[in-house]
Amino acid sequence: MQVGKPILYSYFRSSCSWRVRIALALKGIDYETMPISLIKDGGQQFSKEFQAVNPMKQVPALKIDGITIGQSLAIIEYLEETRPTPRLLPQDPKKRASVRTISDLIAGGIQPLQNLSVLKQVGQENQLTWAQNAITSGFSALEQILQSTAGRYCVGDEVSMADLCLVPQVANAERFKVDLTPYPTISRINKTLLALEAFQVSHPCRQPDTPAELRA
Amino acid sequence: MQVGKPILYSYFRSSCSWRVRIALALKGIDYETMPISLIKDGGQQFSKEFQAVNPMKQVPALKIDGITIGQSLAIIEYLEETRPTPRLLPQDPKKRASVRTISDLIAGGIQPLQNLSVLKQVGQENQLTWAQNAITSGFSALEQILQSTAGRYCVGDEVSMADLCLVPQVANAERFKVDLTPYPTISRINKTLLALEAFQVSHPCRQPDTPAELRA
Repeated sequence: MQVGKPILYSYFRSSCSWRVRIALALKGIDYETMPISLIKDGGQQFSKEFQAVNPMKQVPALKIDGITIGQSLAIIEYLEETRPTPRLLPQDPKKRASVRTISDLIAGGIQPLQNLSVLKQVGQENQLTWAQNAITSGFSALEQILQSTAGRYCVGDEVSMADLCLVPQVANAERFKVDLTPYPTISRINKTLLALEAFQVSHPCRQPDTPAELRA
Repeated sequence: MQVGKPILYSYFRSSCSWRVRIALALKGIDYETMPISLIKDGGQQFSKEFQAVNPMKQVPALKIDGITIGQSLAIIEYLEETRPTPRLLPQDPKKRASVRTISDLIAGGIQPLQNLSVLKQVGQENQLTWAQNAITSGFSALEQILQSTAGRYCVGDEVSMADLCLVPQVANAERFKVDLTPYPTISRINKTLLALEAFQVSHPCRQPDTPAELRA
């Protein structure tokens, strides 16, 4: 492993890992992937080794510049402050507030309620409904917010941290068979973003740990 | 209501509202409180009027400078960018990353799992255990992280956004009867912070909507 290269602890299907992979791709940051399977060995995130990396026992975590950051939005904000080009937060503080509102809505208001560890607690027979409720409730709010913030992307016409949260969350919605018809703005922006190279190279179907049968 | 004064939509017991009240107090920003009871009328956050303010149907929301921000950390970051003194994020990007990691751990990894709307879905008989699990799992990670970040407060010796998240979360832990003995660093920092005036004036027991029997 090359000294000094950032290391991303990542799971191909983790939506929070995908957010960070998009940021790294957009900013052109070369990195190594250290796959942490949330499935194998009863969950490799629970290993002693990984707990020393991230006490929350969650992916992603990024080792960079001599520190380790273990929350996806904190990672993206750090990359933005230390590698500002291209920017992922607008210059205007009001637009930055819109970007962070949308990011926090997804990262705090939707994803935590439908992640693997919570669904395990909910029990197999309730998982799908539980995840669908969390997503549709958040997407209804998001669709309304986007009416006043969106241009080509979530906030205006520049790709921002909000977009990095949106696309992986829509992928989760599709996995949980959420009907996206009531969210035309979310769907339109998602489709536009998926055409960008940074969203494609970071896609779950193209990671070092993607199983052969899911590769594309 | 005075024109131009920020309006905070708040519920006295909401830990996310408390975070923002501390920020407003520390920065000396005068504001009006618009109480939104999460209990009365089946939850006033579900009213048509409030949904127009915050489509997520959650408190807090802050009307300020002609915009409305509906996520507590996005509000605090906006206040920091537009009213930088006293600062709630350190100058060093690595320390800022620590502050945001702790803030996101609480705001994304603990609070959403033990908020009122989730506990309702879990069912009365499981609520206490569910909330306790979410908090102890997050606090175990946080206690470990604080070993390398804490000084007098969560990150070094200056009050930061992380501290604004910590104190309200500890109050929730106490409400849910979590044994705090395994978290001596969390307990020590919480106690130190509670002695500060900004944490006292913003306390749930001293808000315009605090019921008489809970006032102190």
